[in-house]
Amino acid sequence: MNEKVTTRTQDLLPEPTLRRLPWYLAFLSTLRNASIEYISTTRIAEELDVDPSQIAKDLSFLGIRGKTRIGYKVDALEKALRDYLGFDRRHNAVMMGAGSLGAALIADSGLQRYGLNIVAGIDINPDIIGSDINGVKIYDTSRTAALVKDLDIMIGIIAVPVESAQAAADTLADAGVKAIWNFTPSRIRVREGVVISNTSIYSHLAVMYNRLSTINTDDAQ
Amino acid sequence: MNEKVTTRTQDLLPEPTLRRLPWYLAFLSTLRNASIEYISTTRIAEELDVDPSQIAKDLSFLGIRGKTRIGYKVDALEKALRDYLGFDRRHNAVMMGAGSLGAALIADSGLQRYGLNIVAGIDINPDIIGSDINGVKIYDTSRTAALVKDLDIMIGIIAVPVESAQAAADTLADAGVKAIWNFTPSRIRVREGVVISNTSIYSHLAVMYNRLSTINTDDAQ
Repeated sequence: MNEKVTTRTQDLLPEPTLRRLPWYLAFLSTLRNASIEYISTTRIAEELDVDPSQIAKDLSFLGIRGKTRIGYKVDALEKALRDYLGFDRRHNAVMMGAGSLGAALIADSGLQRYGLNIVAGIDINPDIIGSDINGVKIYDTSRTAALVKDLDIMIGIIAVPVESAQAAADTLADAGVKAIWNFTPSRIRVREGVVISNTSIYSHLAVMYNRLSTINTDDAQ
Repeated sequence: MNEKVTTRTQDLLPEPTLRRLPWYLAFLSTLRNASIEYISTTRIAEELDVDPSQIAKDLSFLGIRGKTRIGYKVDALEKALRDYLGFDRRHNAVMMGAGSLGAALIADSGLQRYGLNIVAGIDINPDIIGSDINGVKIYDTSRTAALVKDLDIMIGIIAVPVESAQAAADTLADAGVKAIWNFTPSRIRVREGVVISNTSIYSHLAVMYNRLSTINTDDAQ
């Protein structure tokens, strides 16, 4: 094992568990802000509308067990969760597409607080190549492989127009990134071994609009 | 029925269908760019790795059926999808929290192309109240109800720190928004009848980091 490997051997957690852990973390931050020291599974369950036994099971993946009647120590559990989720480690990333959404994500310092360190941007627009956004320099596509190697980049983020999404994914995979975070509504395919995560914020809009139109129709009846 | 109700009576679609429709739309945009006129279910299925019968079923919700041997007309299907998904209608929204992520989302013109029209921002920071981001003015929290009413706002977007998420949701619900788009990892609760959509981009990071660490551990063994 080399030094880059996390100290704990990580298991491939079920995705639903991985999606719930950040909820617990968010709630714990709220508690810490309110200077609350201990929290019970029951209280977390009430607040987050998750079954108490599910919470205990989720946290047991981290090797953490609450104490009978006392529950979990807030700051220790928060730290353990941040550590386990990788939010306290630095993950270097390159942004493919520094247009509207890409530039917005580069400018979002929140990502840094969750361990994502965007170190370079890539674009095809000659007007923005060579410029920088919040200190992050924008390069030409031809530089991708060299950047990934030189800047120790693990993650490629795709925020290009939908019709260029697959080409961007190919460029990133060829350049050697280990994971691709796809913000386009396009389905991308890469060779096995590259992690793909899809965050199609526009697809979420579709769901919301549909729910809204249903409510409105009901109102009008 | 009043004029604001969409012309077609919308059904409450299953969420998986609603999440797939934008994939089809993205693929159709690519085809149109490549001047392809007709597309078969089989081809869509291959490209997007979705079962052909599922695609036919999804599209039948829109009342659209392909022609035997010819398939679907690309531009007509694209238009029907955009229309059905509500991307061609304007949905006024207010952004709660004009910090890093909130400001980034206000600046993302992509949202506008998907029918989301952010008309105002709300923040508690006196330094940014009164300023504007890409022409969107930032107001004090006390103005929320008046803004929602005066600007015909249907959707409230939450991009505040996690510990303020519930308070922001309460303010929005009290102000009369019909839907809340929550970008924090916090679970929020509102009274029945308000649509909630959660897009926790940081939770997606947790899943990606976990998958990455598993790959790395395997590599190192």
